[in-house]
Amino acid sequence: MFPRLSHPSTLKVTYQELYDVLLRALLKAGLEGERAALCARLFADTDLDGVYTHGLNRFPRFMGMIHRGLVDLSARPVCVTRRGALERWDGQRGPGNLNAHDSMGRAIELAREHGLGCVALGNTNHWMRGGSYGWQAAEAGAIGVCWTNTMPNLPPWGASEPRVGNNPLVVAVPRPRGHVVLDIAMSQFSYGALAAYRMRGEQLPFAGGFDAEGRLTRDPAAIERSGRPLPIGLWKGSGLALMLDMVAALLSGGRATHRVSAKSEEETGLSQVFLAFDLSSFGEPETAARVADEIIENLRQPSAGGEEVRYPGERTLEIRRRNLEEGITVEPSVWRQVQSL
Amino acid sequence: MFPRLSHPSTLKVTYQELYDVLLRALLKAGLEGERAALCARLFADTDLDGVYTHGLNRFPRFMGMIHRGLVDLSARPVCVTRRGALERWDGQRGPGNLNAHDSMGRAIELAREHGLGCVALGNTNHWMRGGSYGWQAAEAGAIGVCWTNTMPNLPPWGASEPRVGNNPLVVAVPRPRGHVVLDIAMSQFSYGALAAYRMRGEQLPFAGGFDAEGRLTRDPAAIERSGRPLPIGLWKGSGLALMLDMVAALLSGGRATHRVSAKSEEETGLSQVFLAFDLSSFGEPETAARVADEIIENLRQPSAGGEEVRYPGERTLEIRRRNLEEGITVEPSVWRQVQSL
Repeated sequence: MFPRLSHPSTLKVTYQELYDVLLRALLKAGLEGERAALCARLFADTDLDGVYTHGLNRFPRFMGMIHRGLVDLSARPVCVTRRGALERWDGQRGPGNLNAHDSMGRAIELAREHGLGCVALGNTNHWMRGGSYGWQAAEAGAIGVCWTNTMPNLPPWGASEPRVGNNPLVVAVPRPRGHVVLDIAMSQFSYGALAAYRMRGEQLPFAGGFDAEGRLTRDPAAIERSGRPLPIGLWKGSGLALMLDMVAALLSGGRATHRVSAKSEEETGLSQVFLAFDLSSFGEPETAARVADEIIENLRQPSAGGEEVRYPGERTLEIRRRNLEEGITVEPSVWRQVQSL
Repeated sequence: MFPRLSHPSTLKVTYQELYDVLLRALLKAGLEGERAALCARLFADTDLDGVYTHGLNRFPRFMGMIHRGLVDLSARPVCVTRRGALERWDGQRGPGNLNAHDSMGRAIELAREHGLGCVALGNTNHWMRGGSYGWQAAEAGAIGVCWTNTMPNLPPWGASEPRVGNNPLVVAVPRPRGHVVLDIAMSQFSYGALAAYRMRGEQLPFAGGFDAEGRLTRDPAAIERSGRPLPIGLWKGSGLALMLDMVAALLSGGRATHRVSAKSEEETGLSQVFLAFDLSSFGEPETAARVADEIIENLRQPSAGGEEVRYPGERTLEIRRRNLEEGITVEPSVWRQVQSL
């Protein structure tokens, strides 16, 4: 029921092999040593956690944006203005995952000082896997909330053309027995998921959009043709996508979705928000851990019908463990391509 | 497409009449003058804005909770502990709308000082219309975000029994030409909406839940019987509902959903979060207004197919204007009941 891309390849590499190949390519492209190490880790962790759309498979496109000057490898985010626990940063069109990691890191620092902290980041690039910055917050013992706007790729409720972004939202809560990390875009199925269902010759498990005639459909190809995927919760997710864009653009001073190019290979100049709450503010780590466990145990208790209920992040931990033990599956052609960069 | 309860009654009262009747009942019940005035205004504004489920029609139930000792009219929220821009308050089981209004007010004060502010409120009661606190923030020139947990009333994805709440979430952005205020529960259709469709003999416009056999259905009565309304975005809204509950319980130190009685007449001891961002932090009111206008204009532009696209809060302003001019429609039996309190 949780659609993931299943990977047809059988080539497996170790985490270290993957990391080394990515690091080498980034160093060769000119990224400074420490930044290259972090960037390689963020990409490799994404595959390790099973989000194959945004790790190695995305890397050639990332390198393409560097070569076309859309991503500036030498740029570092700059603090534009600050007011207490709220700061506005300019990403200077640097690598999106580094900018996002720095921003969540700074939000956590602000939270250590003020209880909570917020960094609004404008003029940045695609952050790749949003969940990374949720895990980052949770590993630091902070509640993390972050979101990004995107190019227009989703019709708002009532329109047939894309005018809002699918604006991924991440909410993470630390929990010693397994962090709880939600990472959701505002579209019910991503274009990547639609393509995967189509290539497997499968219908979607639930209606995922409108066809060109405006009828709800489970046919992934019909939605790819119409460009009308469904927002989560129909009018509700459409509204939430709009609000996330407004807040990101207003707080960061950066672009709103309608100002971002609608061509995916030119998607740059994004706006993002990073919020952290220091869970140790009220000094009850054992209580917080117990409450978090209780909530998760209540969720996961066996159902009368025997159904299995998972918490956000549970599957990630399973995949991470398996991929560390058995190796990470990679697409051979992409692997060779990145090896030769 | 935006389901609202249409009201069969033709009895109309003015805003002042409604306010006066509510105020009189609250004073008679023992609420102190200034608090009674605010409480009456919050209820009356809810009807004024067309949210008839949570205004006058909800008032007798609110009074019932007072008489049964579940809502303490004399209680005021108390700050338990603070750290910079983050405060934890105890609602002392006082009136939920007053507690929520005080909490958003305090979050706005904190935002004036720190750029952003957060009040986590535990041990409180139903906040009635969540949107009220979004409008409150927007009218103060702040971005407001708030949410509440509820009793368990929604099966998480994969389960057939309610284990999470529908946990309404409000996001508000100030805009001189009309604030943008989103107020959404995590269920696609509320039980109130299901009942309204059933009473009109209508099917839902979209699948709203599972029937007792686990099939998706548009039949409101089948969902009322199964107790399985759909979360917005299926697994995505289920995850978001869980996260909202976790963050509210952990930050406030109050109860999580599974600790709240599942009987609606006993729904008390809730946990809520109120966040405010001071939009004037970076001192560009004209820029912010222009950007907000641009985003809304882009959203509302006429569609190729001629469809109308509305922004969250747009309809509220229309209804508010009409209800001020033409009077507010009330249910005669409830009106008489509240008059006689």
